[in-house]
Amino acid sequence: MSEVIATYSVLGKPGSFEKKAEGIALGLTVGTWTDLPQLDQRQLAKYKGRVISVEEKGYAGNKVNALIKIAYPALNFSADLPAILTTVFGKLSLDGEIKLIDLELSKELRKLFPGPRFGIQGIREKLDVYDRPLVMSIFKGVIGRDMDFLLEQLKAQAEGGIDLVKDDEILFENPLTPFTSRIVEGRKILSKVYEETGHQTLYAVNLTGRTSELREKAKRARELGADALLFNVFTYGLDVLQELREESEISLPLMAHPAYSGAFTSSDVYGLSHGLLLGKLLRVAGADFSLFPSPYGSVALEKGAALEIKQALTEENEFKTTFPVPSAGIHPGLVPVLFNDFGTDSIINAGGGVHGHPKGASGGGKAFRQAIETVLAGKSLSEGADAHGELRSALELWGSLEVKS
Amino acid sequence: MSEVIATYSVLGKPGSFEKKAEGIALGLTVGTWTDLPQLDQRQLAKYKGRVISVEEKGYAGNKVNALIKIAYPALNFSADLPAILTTVFGKLSLDGEIKLIDLELSKELRKLFPGPRFGIQGIREKLDVYDRPLVMSIFKGVIGRDMDFLLEQLKAQAEGGIDLVKDDEILFENPLTPFTSRIVEGRKILSKVYEETGHQTLYAVNLTGRTSELREKAKRARELGADALLFNVFTYGLDVLQELREESEISLPLMAHPAYSGAFTSSDVYGLSHGLLLGKLLRVAGADFSLFPSPYGSVALEKGAALEIKQALTEENEFKTTFPVPSAGIHPGLVPVLFNDFGTDSIINAGGGVHGHPKGASGGGKAFRQAIETVLAGKSLSEGADAHGELRSALELWGSLEVKS
Repeated sequence: MSEVIATYSVLGKPGSFEKKAEGIALGLTVGTWTDLPQLDQRQLAKYKGRVISVEEKGYAGNKVNALIKIAYPALNFSADLPAILTTVFGKLSLDGEIKLIDLELSKELRKLFPGPRFGIQGIREKLDVYDRPLVMSIFKGVIGRDMDFLLEQLKAQAEGGIDLVKDDEILFENPLTPFTSRIVEGRKILSKVYEETGHQTLYAVNLTGRTSELREKAKRARELGADALLFNVFTYGLDVLQELREESEISLPLMAHPAYSGAFTSSDVYGLSHGLLLGKLLRVAGADFSLFPSPYGSVALEKGAALEIKQALTEENEFKTTFPVPSAGIHPGLVPVLFNDFGTDSIINAGGGVHGHPKGASGGGKAFRQAIETVLAGKSLSEGADAHGELRSALELWGSLEVKS
Repeated sequence: MSEVIATYSVLGKPGSFEKKAEGIALGLTVGTWTDLPQLDQRQLAKYKGRVISVEEKGYAGNKVNALIKIAYPALNFSADLPAILTTVFGKLSLDGEIKLIDLELSKELRKLFPGPRFGIQGIREKLDVYDRPLVMSIFKGVIGRDMDFLLEQLKAQAEGGIDLVKDDEILFENPLTPFTSRIVEGRKILSKVYEETGHQTLYAVNLTGRTSELREKAKRARELGADALLFNVFTYGLDVLQELREESEISLPLMAHPAYSGAFTSSDVYGLSHGLLLGKLLRVAGADFSLFPSPYGSVALEKGAALEIKQALTEENEFKTTFPVPSAGIHPGLVPVLFNDFGTDSIINAGGGVHGHPKGASGGGKAFRQAIETVLAGKSLSEGADAHGELRSALELWGSLEVKS
């Protein structure tokens, strides 16, 4: 039967969870059960939520933590994420110490969601790079600056061998660096660097504005030659992302920014798990990239949570895979641990770690590429630093973290 | 200057907050400051975030809680909620123990938001009821049921003197009770009750489906004679609600359901405050009703939080007011405390407390109306029970809570 199985982490008294689970399974579907006449029970059986399992995990403070799994028949909702989230974690999100850990959509239901249009393989084909993690960087300090300032940064990043440059997520439509100019002028610069160096860089422009205008704006971006779209999905809605994915006239890689997601994921007790929100749901809805804090930088995520995201983005299923982009406070000295955790099919994303390099963004880009080359060759960073000046400068400035064996 | 002032509650070490605040104010606007040349500082001054205040409130466990206020120039973002939330709580939501408590939009900025189209006064005019709290009830156990079942419930609720009936928020488009049939058949029943009794009941139908289709669906609802729209705003996005509000061809009262909002608001440490999300932002975006858990029922909100929501929905400013709808586990015996907390301009909303009445939903509706009449007359519920049979039955079944003086 087509259904969604939700896994919740709950706090409560030992022995209280079976009853709670039964209450959820009924309350969020047919309402009541045991009081219903036989005839009604027969008629409603296929709409009834079902407790799959209840597992007490042990004490957390003076309460017990339990995992509860409940199946919700797909008959009860339309096949869209707002309906699914309202069903499984609508009023329930308000009902005490409960966190939504996972959602398993049955095969029939998964067929109704798109997954990424390009995925890791499609992005690699656009860049013609298959055998290494990609390097991404972000503009820095562009608010209040003009196109010249922005384009100079873009050029330096591209010349440093950066594969993807993304807008700052807080750069909105503005008269100094308008959306359309960023796309058109940006593409010119990147094409010029490509002609001169043979290195291809893609630029993800920030798609912002009112919800109903995003689709036309995205189509226009494509017509103007945009490479990819950055999107603050969590201040809009997962379904908005999915609709951008589904529109064939847009057909651009979609980069999901985690802005605002901390409001849902940071608590251990409430909200949604990182793996579900930044992993599984973004992939189902069609993000080609998912950015999230790495376990190592200035804004850090617990390593287990970061690996859960990666797992959900890249495990084999019927959807294309989504690029994991561990971010925030990344410098070249972290490449060994990032590669160890996230592997070849990931993106190393830096801001200050590119722009703060003694030789500027171009030097920063080179240092990252050198660090990756070093790690892929099975060498230590200090060996890499002997061979590469930019990497040496970066390590002197920021230090490094080697993988603990 | 047009700006947004954000108030954050932060946990950290004593004496650490000035630096943190400065880091936020710069990091979320111009990036750096002290290292910039004078010329750049002059040029960027109007884009720079500004720390308004830092106030240590005292220890919370082994950390100190502080309130930080930061002003963000409106120059930096477009005048839409996704841009504002991304700016003030985008990456910051991921950065440790921080909760967004309040947002103050400057007057120039507030002019760019609609607020409710009808507001409390407009809803009262539709119902021609001005001098008492309204009574709302919800369908119960309608999943898997047909139109006859639903219409029978609707009729009983209207006959009981209920002012507003809302769909269950987990009732989506389905073949048994399609959206259009609910509107058309529902209106017929309600008009019939009106002809027979002179009592007017409005029915809020659940607007669901894919984001881009909501607008047309809402227009169609209006053409078909819908009274109001229920909307699970938090699984879509605040801007989607605002766009429904702004579309003049929809022009229907919008009832914001709190489904999924617990994922943002439940933690003391992370996410957004109840008053901000379910109060101020819903009103700014244009909700005519905001539902939230009352302090008294099965799913309860801390009283201070519930009153903050009410305050934000109803305090005098340039926007129309939004009806506070304290909900969940409400029965007639709670009317004195609800009236005491939320006043005349609120809605008493019940599910089981209407349908579970010994005389059915009609009896339940009457019991609520009798409880309100009693309280408005300055009498105790036990006095009311002497005069009214339905109220007496309700109090016998569920008990009551009188206001502590």
